[in-house]
Amino acid sequence: MKICRFNGGRLGVLHEGRVHDVSQLLERLPAQRYPLPQKDLLIEALPQLREALAQALPGAQHHAPEAVAFDAPVANPGKIIGAPINYQDHVAESKADAGIAHGRTITSIGDWGLFLKAGSALIGCGEPIVLRFPDRRNDHEVELGVVIGSECRQVARADAMAHVAGYTVALDMTVRGTEFQSFRKSIDTYAVLGPWMVTADEIDDPDQLDLWLSVNGQMRQQSNTRHMVYDVARLIEYASSFYTLQAGDVIMTGTPQGVGPVVPGDRIRAGVAQVGEFEIQVAPQYAGAATA
Amino acid sequence: MKICRFNGGRLGVLHEGRVHDVSQLLERLPAQRYPLPQKDLLIEALPQLREALAQALPGAQHHAPEAVAFDAPVANPGKIIGAPINYQDHVAESKADAGIAHGRTITSIGDWGLFLKAGSALIGCGEPIVLRFPDRRNDHEVELGVVIGSECRQVARADAMAHVAGYTVALDMTVRGTEFQSFRKSIDTYAVLGPWMVTADEIDDPDQLDLWLSVNGQMRQQSNTRHMVYDVARLIEYASSFYTLQAGDVIMTGTPQGVGPVVPGDRIRAGVAQVGEFEIQVAPQYAGAATA
Repeated sequence: MKICRFNGGRLGVLHEGRVHDVSQLLERLPAQRYPLPQKDLLIEALPQLREALAQALPGAQHHAPEAVAFDAPVANPGKIIGAPINYQDHVAESKADAGIAHGRTITSIGDWGLFLKAGSALIGCGEPIVLRFPDRRNDHEVELGVVIGSECRQVARADAMAHVAGYTVALDMTVRGTEFQSFRKSIDTYAVLGPWMVTADEIDDPDQLDLWLSVNGQMRQQSNTRHMVYDVARLIEYASSFYTLQAGDVIMTGTPQGVGPVVPGDRIRAGVAQVGEFEIQVAPQYAGAATA
Repeated sequence: MKICRFNGGRLGVLHEGRVHDVSQLLERLPAQRYPLPQKDLLIEALPQLREALAQALPGAQHHAPEAVAFDAPVANPGKIIGAPINYQDHVAESKADAGIAHGRTITSIGDWGLFLKAGSALIGCGEPIVLRFPDRRNDHEVELGVVIGSECRQVARADAMAHVAGYTVALDMTVRGTEFQSFRKSIDTYAVLGPWMVTADEIDDPDQLDLWLSVNGQMRQQSNTRHMVYDVARLIEYASSFYTLQAGDVIMTGTPQGVGPVVPGDRIRAGVAQVGEFEIQVAPQYAGAATA
């Protein structure tokens, strides 16, 4: 099942190529009082909601995907986790390009660990990416996004996949520089998920998926998740060896070679086979002056 | 005003040395439906709640601080932000100690930027720190914690302090190693805030506060926030130049020299002048096997 959020918080299911509006089912998610849970209520409830979602399709209003603005399919990820240098060809280009490495010695994911992206950076593909720092390089990185479905910690690799709710297309936007990944990749709008989440049962093998990214129609990144250094199960094992994963946590699994700069006005298309594809606009201007 | 959470979610105000239970005021915080806001509802509402909090004190049940278990004073920080190498004497010890540097070249906070700690790592001082990785060094780092009170982005240094709700004592627990700060410092229980938040109006100058930490009665860290490389206003300016800050976001402002290892069973006392002091237990065992 492909589940999406669109037009400012409506709930949709992709069915026969159309976005079916099943927003009335959001009422089944319990109201919350302070303190709020650090997890995504929709992702957590999905196993209980699936039958109702399917039953709601006949008679639901539906729209062409082109006619809606997609919000991030996961609204409340407690953590957005990134996997650095997780494709060997990206390791190679990072070593070769001083504009990526910025003086860092590129070692391995086991040496670097995982990083965090700020939740405040999250957008869906219906919203533009707004670049910062005109004098610096702002790069695209297409990735397979893994959505955690249930709480786990210190989970063994063999048990990890049972904790996956689904997959989405992720853009790990990055300003290059000397700073920590968790700073450079946490700029507002620099974490894109979309267009929808496809539930795990529809993906044969997440470690065998083509992924690609083009800018203004020109192909920039083209690879397959089989080239990941740590595969999906190992990333979950690794992450959960440090911290508890919760329903709705997202792991961006790393990007293959071909990363490169975008500028205001560019149009990015990003896709993962069996998962989906989206186009997103880079806003025509850099982020402006203070509004505080 | 000193505001705390205790005994599993009760709301308290410190008054005449006693924790006054004003939990009934939590009912004023509006119920939320999915998707949940990425901010702390209590911190956001504080300007509106202060009069009611004061009025609730007479007649409120009260407890000795020693008799309650303090929860984290901020329940829902959208971001927990860390300031690396932000005291010159800690820069010096980090350069001198290979067990801290782990092969990294120690440069400056302006070069490194800020890092993120996972929200799932957050605890109050009433809960024990549970160490991981018995074969690695697990260090204490005492810090002044700054709680953001209202949304801001690209805020100028001169305007930054208007966005501070208050201050708390922070422990930025750290496992040493080669990995990113955002991984090593995000282990469950490695982000401690307590015992309460003191509102900004009660602190003359957050950049002139003694802070200290002892382990089992032996003083380990003793300094003053005037030795910070980036002061509080500059940290807010710096953070908000990358991402939007929200009510409840916490900035851990960096630790002075004297960081060092703790082991299971240790007792840590940490304090900041005018803010508060707490004692926290390091659990008698390392984090156990899988419970997923």
